[in-house]
Amino acid sequence: MKIDGVPTRSIALAADGWAVEVIDQTLLPHAFAKRRLETAEAAAEAIRVMRVRGAPLIGATAAYGLALAMRTDPSDAALEHAAQMLVATRPTAINLRWAVDDMTARLRPLPPGERAAAAYRRAAEICDEDVAINTAIGSHGLDLIRAAWQAAGRARPVNVLTHCNAGWLATVDWGTALAPIYMAHDAGIPVHVWVDETRPRNQGAALTAWELGRHGVAHTVVVDNAGGHLMQHGLVDLCLVGTDRTTSRGDVCNKVGTYLKALAARDNDVPFYVALPGPTIDWTLEDALSGIPIEERDGREVSHVIGCTDDGRMAAVRITPPDSPVANHAFDVTPARLVTALITERGVCPATREGLLSLYPERHNRPLA
Amino acid sequence: MKIDGVPTRSIALAADGWAVEVIDQTLLPHAFAKRRLETAEAAAEAIRVMRVRGAPLIGATAAYGLALAMRTDPSDAALEHAAQMLVATRPTAINLRWAVDDMTARLRPLPPGERAAAAYRRAAEICDEDVAINTAIGSHGLDLIRAAWQAAGRARPVNVLTHCNAGWLATVDWGTALAPIYMAHDAGIPVHVWVDETRPRNQGAALTAWELGRHGVAHTVVVDNAGGHLMQHGLVDLCLVGTDRTTSRGDVCNKVGTYLKALAARDNDVPFYVALPGPTIDWTLEDALSGIPIEERDGREVSHVIGCTDDGRMAAVRITPPDSPVANHAFDVTPARLVTALITERGVCPATREGLLSLYPERHNRPLA
Repeated sequence: MKIDGVPTRSIALAADGWAVEVIDQTLLPHAFAKRRLETAEAAAEAIRVMRVRGAPLIGATAAYGLALAMRTDPSDAALEHAAQMLVATRPTAINLRWAVDDMTARLRPLPPGERAAAAYRRAAEICDEDVAINTAIGSHGLDLIRAAWQAAGRARPVNVLTHCNAGWLATVDWGTALAPIYMAHDAGIPVHVWVDETRPRNQGAALTAWELGRHGVAHTVVVDNAGGHLMQHGLVDLCLVGTDRTTSRGDVCNKVGTYLKALAARDNDVPFYVALPGPTIDWTLEDALSGIPIEERDGREVSHVIGCTDDGRMAAVRITPPDSPVANHAFDVTPARLVTALITERGVCPATREGLLSLYPERHNRPLA
Repeated sequence: MKIDGVPTRSIALAADGWAVEVIDQTLLPHAFAKRRLETAEAAAEAIRVMRVRGAPLIGATAAYGLALAMRTDPSDAALEHAAQMLVATRPTAINLRWAVDDMTARLRPLPPGERAAAAYRRAAEICDEDVAINTAIGSHGLDLIRAAWQAAGRARPVNVLTHCNAGWLATVDWGTALAPIYMAHDAGIPVHVWVDETRPRNQGAALTAWELGRHGVAHTVVVDNAGGHLMQHGLVDLCLVGTDRTTSRGDVCNKVGTYLKALAARDNDVPFYVALPGPTIDWTLEDALSGIPIEERDGREVSHVIGCTDDGRMAAVRITPPDSPVANHAFDVTPARLVTALITERGVCPATREGLLSLYPERHNRPLA
């Protein structure tokens, strides 16, 4: 998407054609700085300290990390070493492991002399595949936003509430949940986004607000507590969020707090849509509540808030008593019954096993009748 | 309640018997400092900048503010001036206006020479009445916590989730929602409190966590997004919150985000209790959603977070892009249908008109059949 008019991807080759440039997301929204990655070690560090985050972007960064490794030393030992180092940065990131496995499986059979070029080619493909998926999600979701606009008589902007960051910063471009919003905006449909700040890491206040603002999309940041009030007063036409993992019956595991918004949406007859790339569907799982362990993260994310002081420095401030325990559950589960529809790259479907199979018929594990 | 073993009220006369001491709540939880108020102007400033907050404590502070005014100058002009100044500090605080009106109505008929003593007497009474109401709320709520403990076979602590601060810091002592928790703790019933941080002002993380910790009550601070997850996993036995205003049919207007927790409680069969002093019932209103205008506060509470830096200074950090709009709705409405029961100083009742009238029969505006 655009940063103040300049089309930008979250990861791209530098002008020299071999180094990799990413946006240092730990500095957003307070400073915009690209970071040049020249080694697999630098790529691993960027993932580990979350200069890059979001499943698709992590996968793309790891893929380019392997390309950088092969450029320096295309030996078997160097390939295995780089692969292990990259996978270890975020052990629970499924997309990261997929990208590394895909790359190594393709590179191992090749003579060392061909590996670097092949790695760059495949990393670029992985990026383009992500963009293609998100473009398709965006165009299916655009239909829903356009319908909401027409239902409101085209008389006012469509109000969308989103949680966390499922935007282009989390992917290579477009994003998942934000792709339909960008497409609506670009198509001239007036759209306004309520951005949940998304404690504890504030991805909404820091990243979603920033990327919407830079592209010129109208938005307002609210605390996570506010969504229910907004929906009670008719100020939300639809909710649109991403998901980290979706079960075969349509349960959705996403950033903690998503479930509360889905409850408010149901209580106020507001459609609740979840956008997802097909590859994040876990066909082996039905019940997310019993089947997905919820990651507990560092309590410092709860006890401290990072921001920018009035004199322009980044600082962390503690908001809790030093002796008060904290807990930091990173995700929650929104049961399929609260999801109006899933938006995938293949189209829109009910959040049910039947709905998902209608889009992914190859996942039928019994012969069709 | 106790601060590390020392019984303390949120407002009290100083040792000299005439100055008024309050806790500077703007410094909590980072520093504990009492502030000595010697003039009505100082009392007004304490209310205005929220060194004291919470409806009952604001009323008590205003009452003592008038006593301080009468001590300096007991003339009619001084009384009216102080009353106007105090009411203007928080124009929407109903309890503040009630306390000032009550005091001035009693003081005006008196000869100036008797006003100071009478004002101190009445201010002390207002404080004691608040403590009596909260003690009664606490003892009725204690029965509910004891029942939950027995229902769990006395095998583990009772887990209570609360939102915002309805503790002794918001009142003169005990609090409303926290009174039953203190009584359970003091009675030897093991209780553990999930403390919502309560963005945007973080009254949970700053005040509720601090006062529970100082009294020795087990607690854990969580982000406002976490409650649904906790309830989905059976980690909450009951929710217990306060309310700023309750309608005659039991709708509850409380800190924004309360409604989301009530939805999660219903979805997971967790009882949702609201504690309130009878005087905060608005008998003229039925439907809170259409009847109560929701205060919108300064956006800086959303865009900035105040806390303590690692080197011990208090600082505000900005968490949003400087050009992103923010909205700050301070309260939301929890419809009566989501409230399991109301806990008042007269007992526990269903959140219905009939339930409230069973405790406050004098509010029947038609003759009883």
